Amino acid sequence: MEDLASYQVGTMHYSRILIAVDDDDFISSRRAFDYACTVAKIYNIPLGVAMVLETGDMNVFQSLSPETLSDWRENITRDLNTYCEKAREFGVLDVQPLLAEGNPGREIAEKLIPSFKPDLLVIGSETKSGRRKTLGTHAAYLARYASCSVIIVRSDAQGAAMIKDIKRDTAK
Amino acid sequence: MEDLASYQVGTMHYSRILIAVDDDDFISSRRAFDYACTVAKIYNIPLGVAMVLETGDMNVFQSLSPETLSDWRENITRDLNTYCEKAREFGVLDVQPLLAEGNPGREIAEKLIPSFKPDLLVIGSETKSGRRKTLGTHAAYLARYASCSVIIVRSDAQGAAMIKDIKRDTAK
Repeated sequence: MEDLASYQVGTMHYSRILIAVDDDDFISSRRAFDYACTVAKIYNIPLGVAMVLETGDMNVFQSLSPETLSDWRENITRDLNTYCEKAREFGVLDVQPLLAEGNPGREIAEKLIPSFKPDLLVIGSETKSGRRKTLGTHAAYLARYASCSVIIVRSDAQGAAMIKDIKRDTAK
Repeated sequence: MEDLASYQVGTMHYSRILIAVDDDDFISSRRAFDYACTVAKIYNIPLGVAMVLETGDMNVFQSLSPETLSDWRENITRDLNTYCEKAREFGVLDVQPLLAEGNPGREIAEKLIPSFKPDLLVIGSETKSGRRKTLGTHAAYLARYASCSVIIVRSDAQGAAMIKDIKRDTAK
């Protein structure tokens, strides 16, 4: 294989990171956020923080109430700003909040990535079901359809659960 | 959201990396390999290099020929050793070759990850079809079923293809 024979390993790192935060899943998002902030700080590169208001979550009554929608928008905007503030406190210099509404997977793949143009998307694996092999619908969609590299950050909780499983197996 | 309010971003990096190399897809594997070697070198952490001989690729006649199988094993072992040597030349101190036979996704998720115990799996996105939204079957399987974090490294070629698509759209 000539290509392999003449290949030399080159240094490669990312230059623009987008972290997608799930406002309903702090546990899954937290480790992913730590990772994204660490890389953005070390390389001193821009960090986009994306949140999507899942309008599909609202029932018809709620979607017809401007007050409810307004409350949701206010809450998600506050949380998004909090995440951005945490990233800045950690030492990331260029932090940009990105807010969208709709289906998270599609909004991120089709709107936020084309506009922010990251070369790496960081997502949590959505482990709230407690089953370690579950990958969230939006994470699976993004792994497939994001036009940039994607890292699915599995959380400590998941690792711990896995270790417990192994111990249980060994104990039998 | 109390959890978020009290949260402080922490430094987070990986401590043990497994890179899965597709022996039939040097282009897709190359950028992923560069990334895995860069991270392993910077943090001075162990790097496992995994290759799987896809026995499902062989037809019945071939699978019955010990010579063919022997040739395949010889080739993949040689390529695996070449990759490991390239990683060492680049400056990764602890490089471990890992060879398996069978279905790549399942072998990596069910055998190589449990034995090597990485906290990050690095895979290429298998772009050989030329369509930018294609994620290889094994990559999709691993994104879902690997027990550790997974990074899907999309190659330069793919990024270039995407930029071309956008230019074409703009030109209309």
